[in-house]
Amino acid sequence: MDCNTATLSEIEDLLRRFRFKEVLSDDTSSKTIWLLGTIATTNVTSVDDEPPVPGQNAAIVVLERLAFSPQTIAKADCSLDSVLLATGERNDVYAWATGDARVAALKPDVRIALTYPATQKHIDKHRRQQRKWVCETPELYAKVTKPFIDSQPASRIQWVYNILSKQVESEHILFEDPDPERGFVIVPDLKWDATNMDNMYLVAIVHRHDLRSLRDLTNSHLPLLYNLRSKAVVAAQKYGVSSDQLRLYIHYQPSYYHLHVHITNVLLEGKGMLAGRAHLLDSVIDNISNIASDYYQRATIPYVLGSSDELWSHWAAHQNTSSDEPTTIST
Amino acid sequence: MDCNTATLSEIEDLLRRFRFKEVLSDDTSSKTIWLLGTIATTNVTSVDDEPPVPGQNAAIVVLERLAFSPQTIAKADCSLDSVLLATGERNDVYAWATGDARVAALKPDVRIALTYPATQKHIDKHRRQQRKWVCETPELYAKVTKPFIDSQPASRIQWVYNILSKQVESEHILFEDPDPERGFVIVPDLKWDATNMDNMYLVAIVHRHDLRSLRDLTNSHLPLLYNLRSKAVVAAQKYGVSSDQLRLYIHYQPSYYHLHVHITNVLLEGKGMLAGRAHLLDSVIDNISNIASDYYQRATIPYVLGSSDELWSHWAAHQNTSSDEPTTIST
Repeated sequence: MDCNTATLSEIEDLLRRFRFKEVLSDDTSSKTIWLLGTIATTNVTSVDDEPPVPGQNAAIVVLERLAFSPQTIAKADCSLDSVLLATGERNDVYAWATGDARVAALKPDVRIALTYPATQKHIDKHRRQQRKWVCETPELYAKVTKPFIDSQPASRIQWVYNILSKQVESEHILFEDPDPERGFVIVPDLKWDATNMDNMYLVAIVHRHDLRSLRDLTNSHLPLLYNLRSKAVVAAQKYGVSSDQLRLYIHYQPSYYHLHVHITNVLLEGKGMLAGRAHLLDSVIDNISNIASDYYQRATIPYVLGSSDELWSHWAAHQNTSSDEPTTIST
Repeated sequence: MDCNTATLSEIEDLLRRFRFKEVLSDDTSSKTIWLLGTIATTNVTSVDDEPPVPGQNAAIVVLERLAFSPQTIAKADCSLDSVLLATGERNDVYAWATGDARVAALKPDVRIALTYPATQKHIDKHRRQQRKWVCETPELYAKVTKPFIDSQPASRIQWVYNILSKQVESEHILFEDPDPERGFVIVPDLKWDATNMDNMYLVAIVHRHDLRSLRDLTNSHLPLLYNLRSKAVVAAQKYGVSSDQLRLYIHYQPSYYHLHVHITNVLLEGKGMLAGRAHLLDSVIDNISNIASDYYQRATIPYVLGSSDELWSHWAAHQNTSSDEPTTIST
């Protein structure tokens, strides 16, 4: 990275003048935190009680811990002399501690992003949304989720129909089985750069329009699911990803209500593959074929809703009008 | 967390005597790195060219960047005066930099785990490994996995029995239901710093010794599972984490074959919560109580094996001696 001394001192000056007001959100998995504050007019460290005004003195600072650099550590023949411990425990051959890693080979240790002046839109974007589990019983599916799905305007998934009918993106289609019942297309996911095979991310979108989600699947759809699984394996092999290196899964709730299957390299890990959102295709097939053909009509399915999800307000409305049913984990 | 000064200086002494030899592996998503080295006989910082000998001078150090604590940052009214920048760029209202976060409110910044002496098994476990999916049918469970579990020496989980019988770590027990059939203890997970509630990570370990994994659960264990779920919710509430903010799950394969349930804040995300390893307790209960009491004896369960997992070689041995059954996704 090009380091301009003038730029560095400008940023250092802004950071010195940053007055913390509020934690907007944080993410413990990426070890990132979003702070709202103000940029004071001077860098004198004194009490500065100006409230943040969007578009004027408001500033957002994002702090993210940096991953270690194996190259730097190996090159420096890393010693741990100067680590300052805060807490520690031992048990047999194991010891654990937390501390302040004051070791050059472990630096830099933080990435800082500053937005100044920050607008209200910047602030809203970084404020933490609430999240909560709901336990969707078949009854709650019928009362809350299905009416929500039924109310979705067709225009919402017009883009899916455009792909299936090859009105757009037809050059991106990697594979197609045109059968109206068992057929589907496979396209690269938008999140994939289409070059790094460790991150391979494809999506299979079924041709039929009547399957909105996991809840609609029964044993009558097994021919479609078997067909999709076997052909997805062949499509992925073209990218050098073998069948035992694939993660095939269906989201519930999905981001759009037209059945699609995610096809990723097992090395790719993230929020989208978490239990409670990702349902492995092999388990879906086993549940329907081996356990019960109406498994997905009978199962209670837990998932996490975020306050910015549209479905959130439907659950909230339901919970306000009925107190006779548990919608979350019952104690 | 209880900090014993003697323990701290013991660990500091070990770290001062650590001589780096090799990066075993690293994970940029969790910002963790695994180092192999030796513990020198003195803490004189001189060249020490002894090669690591497993079971003798070999040591593994795991360094993991810690998530920021919103509580600490808010309480300290965090200023960023003393951040030392290494690189920086600006564009319009945006600025980015990397640096050394020399700010008390951002400490501690590293978690250190030390294993000494480290055996060859410890070293192999942390070396970068191959991974592949297996689809464990009930037949393959009976042929491959169950014999492996049965062959585990009792000494492997002596540490679990020590916790249950309060011979060690009894001060860490957050909750206990002593009932021999339905009872369990709740302890903080070793991966948790016990201060940041966003990362809350507890483990409930059942008192009975006969349940080795998910595969053993039937409707006869529902009283245990219901009891555990409701009391885990109460235990987590003491940490300010409400029932709809909890992720309760069971690993399959687990890291040790004595039934335990992971209790984490929904905000905590990582490899341990991925579909194909984490089985949500609510789904487990629903599968057994509502779908089929022998669900976990009948289900085909897919999971990812790593080449350093002991079970990997058992599957490999099976696959070499039998070619009549598909053990991975069939095409």
